[in-house]
Amino acid sequence: MNDSTVDTIRTLVMLGSGNVAVHLAQSFVQKGIKVVQIYSPTIDHAQQLAEEIACRYTNRLADLSEADLYLFALTDSAIPEVLRQRSWEGKLCVHTAGSVPLDVFKPFTQFYGVLYPFQTFSRNVPLALDEVPFFIEASDKNVEQQLFQLASKISSRIQLANSQQRQSLHLAGVFACNFVNHMLAIAENILKQNKLPTESIHPLISETVRKALFISAEKAQTGPAIRNNTEIIRKHIEMLRDKPEWQKIYTFVSDSIYKMYHS
Amino acid sequence: MNDSTVDTIRTLVMLGSGNVAVHLAQSFVQKGIKVVQIYSPTIDHAQQLAEEIACRYTNRLADLSEADLYLFALTDSAIPEVLRQRSWEGKLCVHTAGSVPLDVFKPFTQFYGVLYPFQTFSRNVPLALDEVPFFIEASDKNVEQQLFQLASKISSRIQLANSQQRQSLHLAGVFACNFVNHMLAIAENILKQNKLPTESIHPLISETVRKALFISAEKAQTGPAIRNNTEIIRKHIEMLRDKPEWQKIYTFVSDSIYKMYHS
Repeated sequence: MNDSTVDTIRTLVMLGSGNVAVHLAQSFVQKGIKVVQIYSPTIDHAQQLAEEIACRYTNRLADLSEADLYLFALTDSAIPEVLRQRSWEGKLCVHTAGSVPLDVFKPFTQFYGVLYPFQTFSRNVPLALDEVPFFIEASDKNVEQQLFQLASKISSRIQLANSQQRQSLHLAGVFACNFVNHMLAIAENILKQNKLPTESIHPLISETVRKALFISAEKAQTGPAIRNNTEIIRKHIEMLRDKPEWQKIYTFVSDSIYKMYHS
Repeated sequence: MNDSTVDTIRTLVMLGSGNVAVHLAQSFVQKGIKVVQIYSPTIDHAQQLAEEIACRYTNRLADLSEADLYLFALTDSAIPEVLRQRSWEGKLCVHTAGSVPLDVFKPFTQFYGVLYPFQTFSRNVPLALDEVPFFIEASDKNVEQQLFQLASKISSRIQLANSQQRQSLHLAGVFACNFVNHMLAIAENILKQNKLPTESIHPLISETVRKALFISAEKAQTGPAIRNNTEIIRKHIEMLRDKPEWQKIYTFVSDSIYKMYHS
């Protein structure tokens, strides 16, 4: 029968010690889920996180403790590598990655799932997980229900998403987080180069995002590209002559803005 | 002597009826500056704003009222066009544009300046101007002081910036506002295409900006590009096969992120 061995997840082993592992481990501990052990191939990293949350640690997969859940908060490529290195038969294995398909676990165990927190994590930036959307996918209904229950302890926004949807979430997140951040980093650099305080741009950034969340980004678009103000665009590209990679971004993002509203 | 005719600006004629004109006019009226008249080449637009703030309006430059200040909240190209159409001798003329140099006024009057609000304005999105940085440039010290005084009534963040700095502010603003917004619009589109609610991405957007303002965008960068995760990057570009303009953005922004941290 397609049933995992437990009804409720009370204990877990965390595989990984990066930003996602740190935030999830801390949050689970706070909500009464017992993190029994941290595994990391780098023993110092495992030790550091284990000391923060007062649990065991190891860098040897053979020494993993027994637990209701093995949570793989590892880089994408480390997930199959770690899976190949020992037996997971009968164990519930779950990963937290946006772009790794559910069935990465299929050859190794009968019980598996995904718990994808749709958020950006930095080790030293505190974060309340409560509003973070968690997207769940599971090998069967029983595992799905267990993951819902588990995630509900740390967040109020749990949804289902299949592997293709989760991959699209990840892609959308790259634009909305990583690329947005890079646009801001370029803006900071331009200000610094011209001896202007980077704080000058904070109200503009806050208002940009406030408007985008309020009326949707598609409706909130302003600027030279949507107005097709070729004179300003030409001048800005000329100002970026020492930064060919920013010139390309300026050109192609402007083209893309124009196309979104005029085709 | 290089002195303008008044010591304190108490009355102004607003030239323009777009987003910037609307927000500034409303704010000035609230703070006791008398907007005596709205000029717009489109009489309906002039009338609409004039009715909102209860003042006269016109679409004829020959009929402009007397005022301490003529505030050009017009598109970049309309500023010199409007200047050429009548005499401005002895009048204090000020524009609000990021990329128009101060000396656009030089052939027309002795008293001139710039009052550049570094913010994004949408007509129907209310906005508190108090925290908006205003950048000032002026023909002489007396005008500079008058513009400081005037701007101080609507904002607490007044700074000086010369024409080159203001142009850099505008360029930085295009990245931090217009391009950020377009990244968000692309993310919204990807979610919609995959039947995922666009609200799912709001916590990620808010956290991205919170981190960037907290530790600086340059330090806050995460994602596949900075880690040089070529497998994810290749997969994402493949997912965008129907949108060549988004593929280009993905490719060149990823390249630019990588270069910022690895060269």
